[in-house]
This record gives sequence, C-alpha cells and structure tokens, in this order.
Amino acid sequence: MTVELTGIIPPLTTPLTAEADVDTASLERLCAFLLDGGVDGLFVCGSSGEVALLSDAQRAKVIGVAAATASGQVPVLAGVIDTGTARVIDHARAAVKAGAGAVVATPPFYVAPNADEVVRHYRLLADAVDAPVVAYDIPSATHSPLSRAVVERLAHDRIVVALKDSSGDLDGFRAHLSATADTGLRVFTGSETMTDIALQLGAHGAVPGLANVDPHGYVRIRRAADAGDWAAAAAEQERLRRIFAIIDVADRNRIGFTAGALGAFKAAQHLRGVIDTPRCADPLLPLESSEIDAVRAILEREGVLD
Amino acid sequence: MTVELTGIIPPLTTPLTAEADVDTASLERLCAFLLDGGVDGLFVCGSSGEVALLSDAQRAKVIGVAAATASGQVPVLAGVIDTGTARVIDHARAAVKAGAGAVVATPPFYVAPNADEVVRHYRLLADAVDAPVVAYDIPSATHSPLSRAVVERLAHDRIVVALKDSSGDLDGFRAHLSATADTGLRVFTGSETMTDIALQLGAHGAVPGLANVDPHGYVRIRRAADAGDWAAAAAEQERLRRIFAIIDVADRNRIGFTAGALGAFKAAQHLRGVIDTPRCADPLLPLESSEIDAVRAILEREGVLD
Amino acid sequence: MTVELTGIIPPLTTPLTAEADVDTASLERLCAFLLDGGVDGLFVCGSSGEVALLSDAQRAKVIGVAAATASGQVPVLAGVIDTGTARVIDHARAAVKAGAGAVVATPPFYVAPNADEVVRHYRLLADAVDAPVVAYDIPSATHSPLSRAVVERLAHDRIVVALKDSSGDLDGFRAHLSATADTGLRVFTGSETMTDIALQLGAHGAVPGLANVDPHGYVRIRRAADAGDWAAAAAEQERLRRIFAIIDVADRNRIGFTAGALGAFKAAQHLRGVIDTPRCADPLLPLESSEIDAVRAILEREGVLD
Amino acid sequence: MTVELTGIIPPLTTPLTAEADVDTASLERLCAFLLDGGVDGLFVCGSSGEVALLSDAQRAKVIGVAAATASGQVPVLAGVIDTGTARVIDHARAAVKAGAGAVVATPPFYVAPNADEVVRHYRLLADAVDAPVVAYDIPSATHSPLSRAVVERLAHDRIVVALKDSSGDLDGFRAHLSATADTGLRVFTGSETMTDIALQLGAHGAVPGLANVDPHGYVRIRRAADAGDWAAAAAEQERLRRIFAIIDVADRNRIGFTAGALGAFKAAQHLRGVIDTPRCADPLLPLESSEIDAVRAILEREGVLD
Repeated sequence: MTVELTGIIPPLTTPLTAEADVDTASLERLCAFLLDGGVDGLFVCGSSGEVALLSDAQRAKVIGVAAATASGQVPVLAGVIDTGTARVIDHARAAVKAGAGAVVATPPFYVAPNADEVVRHYRLLADAVDAPVVAYDIPSATHSPLSRAVVERLAHDRIVVALKDSSGDLDGFRAHLSATADTGLRVFTGSETMTDIALQLGAHGAVPGLANVDPHGYVRIRRAADAGDWAAAAAEQERLRRIFAIIDVADRNRIGFTAGALGAFKAAQHLRGVIDTPRCADPLLPLESSEIDAVRAILEREGVLD
Repeated sequence: MTVELTGIIPPLTTPLTAEADVDTASLERLCAFLLDGGVDGLFVCGSSGEVALLSDAQRAKVIGVAAATASGQVPVLAGVIDTGTARVIDHARAAVKAGAGAVVATPPFYVAPNADEVVRHYRLLADAVDAPVVAYDIPSATHSPLSRAVVERLAHDRIVVALKDSSGDLDGFRAHLSATADTGLRVFTGSETMTDIALQLGAHGAVPGLANVDPHGYVRIRRAADAGDWAAAAAEQERLRRIFAIIDVADRNRIGFTAGALGAFKAAQHLRGVIDTPRCADPLLPLESSEIDAVRAILEREGVLD
Repeated sequence: MTVELTGIIPPLTTPLTAEADVDTASLERLCAFLLDGGVDGLFVCGSSGEVALLSDAQRAKVIGVAAATASGQVPVLAGVIDTGTARVIDHARAAVKAGAGAVVATPPFYVAPNADEVVRHYRLLADAVDAPVVAYDIPSATHSPLSRAVVERLAHDRIVVALKDSSGDLDGFRAHLSATADTGLRVFTGSETMTDIALQLGAHGAVPGLANVDPHGYVRIRRAADAGDWAAAAAEQERLRRIFAIIDVADRNRIGFTAGALGAFKAAQHLRGVIDTPRCADPLLPLESSEIDAVRAILEREGVLD
Repeated sequence: MTVELTGIIPPLTTPLTAEADVDTASLERLCAFLLDGGVDGLFVCGSSGEVALLSDAQRAKVIGVAAATASGQVPVLAGVIDTGTARVIDHARAAVKAGAGAVVATPPFYVAPNADEVVRHYRLLADAVDAPVVAYDIPSATHSPLSRAVVERLAHDRIVVALKDSSGDLDGFRAHLSATADTGLRVFTGSETMTDIALQLGAHGAVPGLANVDPHGYVRIRRAADAGDWAAAAAEQERLRRIFAIIDVADRNRIGFTAGALGAFKAAQHLRGVIDTPRCADPLLPLESSEIDAVRAILEREGVLD
C-alpha cells in the first residue's frame, strides 16, 4: 500500500466526446503525452478533471483508463471529492477498485464543518479505504479551508500521507512545511505560477493544472530545482506564467471561472493534438472561436505551438 | 405533472439510527407528526435533511418512506442537491422513481458557474426529468447565489415552478416577488424567523427548518396570514423566534454550524418523542448533554414541552 | 441634552459647487425641501453626505448650515465617522460646536476591533462629548459589523441613545428591537426599500437615502404606519422601490457603487431643482448624460418629475 | 524631490505615553535603534504606526520627530492614510511640511471606489503634493484591493514611484514585478514572513512590521539577498517567522487582530528597552501580563532577549 508521491503530478482534464461521454481514446493519448513529458504521477478526477460535473460511472471509467495506461510506471491518484463522509467513502472504494493507488479528498463542503469534524472526516475515510489518503485544500471551490492546525493534526496522526495545497496562500504553505517536517507528510502545491518557489521552500512536488498543456515545462522546473539552479527554475516558471494567461482570455461576463480556465486548458490540448474535442461538461459553456484564437496566439508566442 | 405548492412545507430532518442508517420508523413518525400539525407538503433531502451527508441509497430510501407516508395527502418534494448537472439529473430521476412529486435543486457549486451556466443547468434538468423543478437559493451552503436576473429568467421561461429562497436577503425576496408576479412562480422563504413578514409580502409559503420541531406554530402563522391578522402572525412568529434560539446552544468552537443547528432540531424532536435518536450523519459531532439540557429548557419555557 | 429621535430622518447629500466646495445655497434649499416634505430630523455628514470624502472644514460648514436652517424645528444629527476613537471625538466636539444635536458614529474601521474594543470606543466617545451618541452599523462601508451582543451592551449601558442599522439584515434588526425593547434605545433602519416593514416590526424611524429625492413618499409611509394601514404603507413602499432603481442606472464597470448611488440621488435632486450641481466629491466620477436621462425617465414614470 | 527607496524600511510603531500622547523620547530611541540596525528608511504613520487611531496633530508630531532623528541619513516616508482624496491631500501637505520625503497612500476606503476612481485619487494626490507618492495595498484594512491593472496604470503613468504590497498575495506580487519592470516602479513587500522570497523574486525591498522588533534580522536577509545567498536568507527568514508567532499570543476572543499584533510588537520593543510603555491607542485593549510573558519566552528562545 505504499505509493511514492513526489515531483510533478498533473491534475488531468477529462476529455469528453461531443456527446459529453468520457473520450477514452483522448484520455489515453493525454496520459501518454504526460508520461512522455516525464511526469511523476497522474491525478485524475480532480478539480481540473471536472470531477464535480462527472457522474459516478464517468469517474470510475476515467480512473480505469488512467490506471491501465500508467500500468504501474507512475502512481495514479484519484479525486474522491464530494460533500460528505459517506459519499466520499463510496467514491474512494470505487476508485481503489478501478485502480487508483491513492485517493485525494477535500474536507466536507456545503455543510460548514468545524475543525474536529474535518479531522473526523479524514479519519473515517482513512479507516474505510485500503489506500493512502491525500488531503486537498481548495477553499475557492469548497469554502472549507484546511486550517494550519488541522493540517498538523492530519500529519501528526498519520491520517493522510500528503497534502495538495491549492489555497493560493504561500505563507501558509511554508508554515505547513515547517510544522509537518518531522511527520513524513508530502506537501504539494497546486499552484501553476509559483511551482519554483514552492519547490525551493521544500515542497515535495506540484500538481499544476497547466501541466496538462505543457508538462515538459514543469518537469524542467523540477529538474532545475533538483539541481539547485533556482535561476533556471525561475526562468522556466516565468515562461509558464505567461502561458497561464490563457485562462483569462474568456469573457467572464459570458462564462464562469471554471469554464474559462478548463476551457482554455482543453482548447490548448486540442490545439496541440492531444485531445479530440475541447468541450467541458454541462452546464459549462464553451470558449468562442475568437477566444480559442487568443489561446493559440499565446501558445505560439511561447513556443508551445509551432 | 401538476403539484400544488403552497403553505408550510417543512424541510424534514433525516432520522438516523445509532449506526447511521435511515431510521424508517422514526421518519414515518416524523411525517405523521408534521401532517398532523397541518403542514401543506413535505420536503425531504434538503439541507435540514443532511442531504449532502447521505449516500444515494439513503436518499432514495428517505424519499420512498415520505412518499408512502404522505400517500398523496400532500406533495412530497425531494432535494436533488449536488455539484453538477449530470449528477443532479441522476438524483432527480431516482427521486421521481422513489415517489417525489417535485425536485428541488440548487445551482451547481464547487465549480463557480456564471449566470448563463446556472440557467442552462436548470434548463437541462427540467428537460431531463418528468417532474416540476424548484430552484433552491442557499448561498451559505453553495456559495453560488441565485441573482435576481437568474430568478427572473427561470420564472419567465417557466423552467422552474417555484423558488425556495434561503438567502436571508428579505429585500431580494421582495424583489423576486415583484419581478415574477406575472409568471406564476411560487416563491417560498426558507427563513424560520421571518415567515410572517414573507407571507405578508406575498410569499406563497415557507420552508422553515424549525417546523420540524413545532409545525403547529408555523401553521398558525399561515392561518393568521390567510386571515390578514398580522398582529397574531407576528406574535406567533416572536414565539418561534425565541424557540429558534436552540440552534445557538452548542459551542461552535467544538462543532460546526450545521451540527449545531441540526443537532438542536433533532434533539428537540427526540425530546418531543418523535424520533428515536438525535444523532446526525458523519462527520458531524453530536450535542453534549448540557447542550441538550439547554434545548429542553427553551422548549419548556415556550410551552413546546410540558 | 435630550433630543427626540423618531420618524423619517433623511441622510442628506452634500451639495457641492463645480469646484467641489460645499454649495451653501443648495444645501439650504435641500434642508427646506426636506422640512417642507415633513421629515422629522436632518442627518448630515452621513454616508449619503459623502462624509468620508469631505475635509474637516467642509464637515463643519455642512453641520452649521443644516443647524441654522433647521433652527430648532427638528433635530440635526451629524455623522462623526472616522477610523479611530481620537479622531471621532475630535469630529464630535467640532460637530456639537457647529450645532449638531446628536452625533452618529460607526465602530472603528481599518483596524479590525473586537467586541470589547467597539464598546470601549463608544463609551469613550459618549464620555467625551456633550451630546447623545447614535451607533451606526454599516458593514458594507466599515467591514466592522455591530454584533447583536454589542448592540445589546450599548443599549443596556445607555452608552448610545439610538441605532441606525444599515446592515441590510432585517432578521438582525428584528432581534435588536426585541433585545433592547426595555432599554429605551431608538432603533432606525437605514433601508430605502424596507421602511414599511421596519416600522411594522416596531422601528422608531428610518434614515433612507432616497428621502433626499422623495421625502414626501417616506413621510406618507410613516403616516400610514402611524395609522396601522400596512397596505397603504406597502403600496407607497413599492413605488419608492421602483424609484430606487435609479441607483443602478450607472455602468458599474465605469464608476463604483458610491458614485453610482449618490450620483443618482444628486442627479435626481438636480432634476427636481433642489440643488445646482449633481457632482460628487473627488475621486468619484460623475454620471454620464445617458445615465442622467435614465434617472429622469424613472422619476417621470413614477410621478416625481412632471 | 528624488528619494532613493530601497531595502529594509520598517513601518514604525508609534510609542505612546501612559496618557496616550506621542512619546517623543521613545520614538527617538526607536528611530536610533532602527538606524543602528542598518535599515534603509523609516516609514512612520503606517498601519503599524496605528495611523488610523492618531489625531492629525499626533501624526504631524510623529513625522517631525522621525525626520529630525533621521536627519537625512535615510529617507522618511509618511503614511497619509484616510478615506478620501481631499483628506489624504490635507495629510500629505502636512506630512511634507513636517519633514516627510515621500508619502504613502492607500486607495480610498469606506466608499467602494472602482478602478478609474482609484487611479484618479492617486493622480489628484500626486498633482497636489510636492513629494513622491507610494501606493499602499492593504486590503485587510481597506477592503479596497489594488488590482493588477490599477498598479500597472499607476506605474506606467508615473503617478506613483513605489508600491507597498501588504496584500499577502505573492503571486500578484510577482505579477506586479513583471508588469512594471520597465517603468522604474519600486516594489516593496509588506510581508514579515516572505521577505526572502520577495527579494529573490526581484523586490526592491521590504516594509516588515516585525523589523520594529528585530531590524538586524531583516537587514541580514537583505545582505544575504544582495550576495545571492538564498539559503542564508531563508535560514534568517525562518528564525524571523518563529519570532513572528508573537502576534498570535493574545486571546483573540478578548482583543482584536490589530491590538494583538501591535500590542505584541510594542511589548517586544518594551522588553528590549527601546520604548517606555507598550500601550496602544484607544480603543485598542492591552495585552495581559501572561501574554507579555509569552512574548518574552519567544524572544528569549530566538535569542532576541538575553
């Protein structure tokens, strides 16, 4: 039951067909594209995977495809994101059955739990499922932030093996690293734009959504970090920061943040020939063609597209 | 496919056994208690029903029991609350199959949709399910408020038949009533503490969680409102406002808002002999005995317990 | 030192000249217009008076003009709004010297005080100034809400004589009325759109910014309320709610909320011939002519302009 | 009118006497202590200086003392923080008269300005005062964040010469650095805990409140950064992060954030013998003796006190 969690672990988008089914062939190509890029793991059914918009059957299919394609080369992590403990446990059992090597869970949401209830949630999950549990802090989605005290308790009691921190709070991230240094907790940033800094601060890795588009760039950051070459890491990061501007090309008066960001990732994957169709799951609206042109222009400018 | 939605429609708690299964016998007693109190409908699998903490199987069981117990005397509404469209449609189909006469859906959450995407969500749901759809605005849980413009579109396009407004924004509630007056939209308040005012402003009814504890009081408000006796309605409302203090007896440093409020409702139902066990679903923590004593004292003071 | 606080007390805009000086003649006309409309007091240097954008000298001039024009017919209240206790006491002393009969103070802001510090702020102010103190809750501006517990302490210890509640939380307003009923606290709503309901709940009066534009309408609500004719009060309120739409005519991508709302009030006052110039204080930007046309159209539709 | 802004510029606390007057002798000692520590400038009347709680006369006195003590060795910056443009211009003229070499202004607050109005505010200020203007982003206090677009406009139009970024958003900080690199804007972090990272990202300096307590530590970070020795910078930063825990010793149920943090800074300065009295301005409440003991213990543990 041990899984080595380290390095660049992209949170995969979920390629869909025009009819909104899981596009198995595209998903296999995406896995291969990322593995070819040198990533250290695959994280499916995360926020970038539109997990909240997928049915249970779709979730299981995605995990199965990723596990089969990875075939043990790198660990496959699966999001088991839902509002409450019973539901999360159901997802976790299904994920393990489908081939996941670790499960990634947010705190409960919709129900405004307090700290003790959040710890209890993770403890019940860890007890119920035969796989390591990763805590996932993404308050922009859950509105249930993981406090420093909760992270410390989860780490010290060995309830979770890792943290994915998508809070955007780099000061808190540094605090987590200090407070859990002696626990073995693996601490990952979810930031696309501060991966170099996170690694310099001691992070064990990163789970950047933009690695769906440019895995090679993030792998270069990791390698520069391994070599202690922070200037090279920063230069690569700056390039990726410029590419990350693709998430802002969509008109936010027309479509929401999720549709804008994931639509841009999928448009870029489509432009790179990795996936067949850039559509997102219902009810998200698609990017318009002028917006896709803007994505293309950024990718061309930064050398991602020829 | 017509369901008459009006009056007092309590959002039922979900009685659980000590092992956290649905307590069918207690749920039947609760339905009978409410019907005996004169309520005009039963709303199961709402926020007060801990829907976010129930498994799919538990949701279906709850709906089935309520439908069987109501046996056509009053409509049974079922919450189909989840993060995204596909998941909500799955719940809605299961709910109709289990006997629900109408389904109650929040906007998508976790995924930060914009207005057009929210309207699209409801349209896809209404097209997919053979039952009337009620829109449910509860931004404290979803962090996806239904804007005035969205409510107007949903009403004017006849996508939803009713709105449950648990936003706490009485000014917005009044605006909804004005803006949808010619559409036939049925507008319900979710407020326990302003039911009298909502009815005076023209609301078609109320869905107050506290009606789980004292349905007779809310029915008296409705009857006073029907008679235009606003002073009587206000006096009854003031009594219910004092009872509503039970949601604040729990120490919020120990348990969260949901556990505090629902734990108090269930404690009161237990003290009244309606349900067997006051426990909430995982990971919510229970009230302590001193907190239950405080609930009892309030109920005794206000004449709810002898 | 007793001042009878009751009824409709408009929070006056501050008329400015084209050069952004206080326009004394317009201010005198505004006072006369409001007194002629039957209002029960004048509140100058409030949020609607752009107090936060006026210099100390301008504040004193405004108070002096209002006191001279009112000449004892109705009380003149003066906002003494600032970030900290020392600054507020300085304003309060200047306000009393300039003729104010009562001073209106928010809690400290910018400095994130807790409850005890807020109570201490009001106590120090009340001890330092020879005039009754009114507490002003406007969290949209201060981000320092007055909690129910703080309001109760201020009332029970007779630190303040009245509360102006511009929180928008009508449930909290009702709680304040209940909790302070035996203290003599005068409770005013700051809402333009729920004045009828507030009075029905037992409020002692209202401080609606829109009374700058249509004082007669608010006075009619008060008179209907005095007569217990809630249907008449509601009908008048609905008319005023439609007029209040003037605050939304401005493009909020171009100017902020304050500029949009106060600019509309001033445009309406200008269109009615009450003030000479509709400009706001720096750095607020003015309404454009098409936006002023939209204000005019609403006023004409509702019979405010011929 | 040129002032070289670079390096460590502590935002001085304002030492007060037991009677809440400015303690001139302590302030002189504090200036000397900081200059002796090797700081590159003095910033008085900032948030750490309790500017929002000082009268106009107190603000002028503080600036005068700092200017006299610095006597041209390093620049003296003065906060001119207030709600609106006219008030800020009045403060700025008084500050320059009292000896300030640059003025530091937040956007307007209380009045919810939009982007154009914020830019206009700074433009009017810069035109009105004969000193360079520094923009100060501290949304936790103002609730008026400076957006990336506004910072770019302020920089490209040379309206401000520098930015103090106390937003806590290191990703935004990095974006500011990129976007303004060709404008000459000096970009400072207000973070106590990420100074090393900010400098590595290219910041021109830091304005950390904790430098009131341990200026030598921050100067060591700056020197390590100048030498490109990021490991040494990080080690010193980690030590300062541990010291920064003093801001959390106070019971936040008893006193607010500002009183807790500034009270701890002043307690530490008092323990180090720099200032005579640790009190804060009204209405802030003081730390209790057990809390001061906790401050002492942290300072002793980290070698700040013998």
